[in-house]
Amino acid sequence: MPFTPAELEYLTSQRLGRLATVAPDSSPQNNPVGYFVRDDGTIDIGGFRMGASRKYRNVKKNNKVALVIDDLVSTDPWKVRMLEIRGDAEAIDDAEPPRAGMTSEVIRIHPRRIFAFGIEPDDEGIQRREF
Amino acid sequence: MPFTPAELEYLTSQRLGRLATVAPDSSPQNNPVGYFVRDDGTIDIGGFRMGASRKYRNVKKNNKVALVIDDLVSTDPWKVRMLEIRGDAEAIDDAEPPRAGMTSEVIRIHPRRIFAFGIEPDDEGIQRREF
Repeated sequence: MPFTPAELEYLTSQRLGRLATVAPDSSPQNNPVGYFVRDDGTIDIGGFRMGASRKYRNVKKNNKVALVIDDLVSTDPWKVRMLEIRGDAEAIDDAEPPRAGMTSEVIRIHPRRIFAFGIEPDDEGIQRREF
Repeated sequence: MPFTPAELEYLTSQRLGRLATVAPDSSPQNNPVGYFVRDDGTIDIGGFRMGASRKYRNVKKNNKVALVIDDLVSTDPWKVRMLEIRGDAEAIDDAEPPRAGMTSEVIRIHPRRIFAFGIEPDDEGIQRREF
């Protein structure tokens, strides 16, 4: 499990992540997604038309992804909490759909590097861990 | 100006965007950012340590970026509004800081492709435009 208890709690408290993938021409795309943390610390991204999506095709060609979950705690002072999860992703054709109505195609993220800011109560600055 | 009045209103109503950039090894990173729409429709991303940031260095090597602004309108039914702006970015060393206290280094995005969902009142599905 790559996440600390505070990080898991934060992931549970938020609903929307943003998934960056890279197209074969090296240009990124960035999509709002729901996410589901599995017991082993991998993260599933499902969808209602996942198999037909460009992000799914991108992952088949380039398995590097970055998922960011964040929120704006205050604007004055400007205060953002965030967890950026960079990792290797699999485009799985026959997964258990993470939610009713979703297809069996899933992007599964194996976290390799985590950047956290404002998640642990006593931490200052950006925390970085690798796996 | 690449944005419609409804899109501009949406951009003004939201505070946080997420900027995907691509590192030289073709892996993406994804960062929460404030954004400032300029009169000509380009978008400035500033920061308090922008010049030292990895995203700024990424843009110097690969100018393709994707900025997504979104929000979750309801969870049942699951309803997301979003504007994904893909474009060419410049890493500018001596820009007008978009906000007091920010440095003069700015990432300026020239929109080339916009994907919109749920922004125009009468639109259904994803709207896509190119420039």
